[in-house]
Amino acid sequence: MTINQPAEPMTVTFTCSGQATGKMRNELDIKMIKPINEHFTLATDEGSFHGGDATAPPPLALFIGGLTGCIMTQIRAFAKRMDITIENLHVETTIQWGWTPKDRIYETHPKSLDIDISIESPSALEDQITLVNAAKKGCFVEQTLAQRNQINHRIKTPEGFLVIS
Amino acid sequence: MTINQPAEPMTVTFTCSGQATGKMRNELDIKMIKPINEHFTLATDEGSFHGGDATAPPPLALFIGGLTGCIMTQIRAFAKRMDITIENLHVETTIQWGWTPKDRIYETHPKSLDIDISIESPSALEDQITLVNAAKKGCFVEQTLAQRNQINHRIKTPEGFLVIS
Repeated sequence: MTINQPAEPMTVTFTCSGQATGKMRNELDIKMIKPINEHFTLATDEGSFHGGDATAPPPLALFIGGLTGCIMTQIRAFAKRMDITIENLHVETTIQWGWTPKDRIYETHPKSLDIDISIESPSALEDQITLVNAAKKGCFVEQTLAQRNQINHRIKTPEGFLVIS
Repeated sequence: MTINQPAEPMTVTFTCSGQATGKMRNELDIKMIKPINEHFTLATDEGSFHGGDATAPPPLALFIGGLTGCIMTQIRAFAKRMDITIENLHVETTIQWGWTPKDRIYETHPKSLDIDISIESPSALEDQITLVNAAKKGCFVEQTLAQRNQINHRIKTPEGFLVIS
């Protein structure tokens, strides 16, 4: 099987335009704008305990789904390129966060991220492990979580966007 | 307005059970198991350029949607508690990743994460900024991305799960 891929590094860019509606619902208009154009519509909401109407999954469901889907996609995509046969793939992800009250609000922090991978394959276990390690490096979400990221926030003012530090 | 919240720290736990189907589609069965039980069903797929059938959004759409929804939820949830009125909330998120070919596969890394926040409010800009900074600390996804995370991978073997390092 021949896989043709670009020979040079490239940039992959996603944008998300979020509009608050309802009590806690957010309409999310998502686009891939590089290297090709694609368009997706999603939404988040919260359950009644968080003041929402439960009309859509909460943001954390999208987050853990994005992580799980990303590593699964990468395992299948790279299996073809590494000549490893996958007859079945099942992944169980668990994320724990800490929640700490601070006066009337609260703070949060990640406590653990665990991914259990079940591959049915005639290939040797060591080849499956080589595949998973390659998939980790190719998975955009895993590589993002594996480093400390600076998130740049700006807020709209009458004079234009102001950087919040 | 009185908000009652637990006085002690707690743990919030999500699980995701992913089953590969079709060419690149993943069925995602997602549960919040702490502090309360909720259940959500999502899926990811890929477009034809990545060997999929485009039956669901790609993992990166869920990821950027989870981040955007999380900060938006936190801004609205904390506004009530901080006595800041929000008449409209709109957020534009952009994430860029680098993609580098390595032989027949590739590696990835995050390049930039930008969040532009537009709040319509009679409250002073400095109060809006205080709100956004509080929301950053309360947003589970932002706090996860802001630190270097260890992701623990295990692979199923005939003798049970083996830790992959």
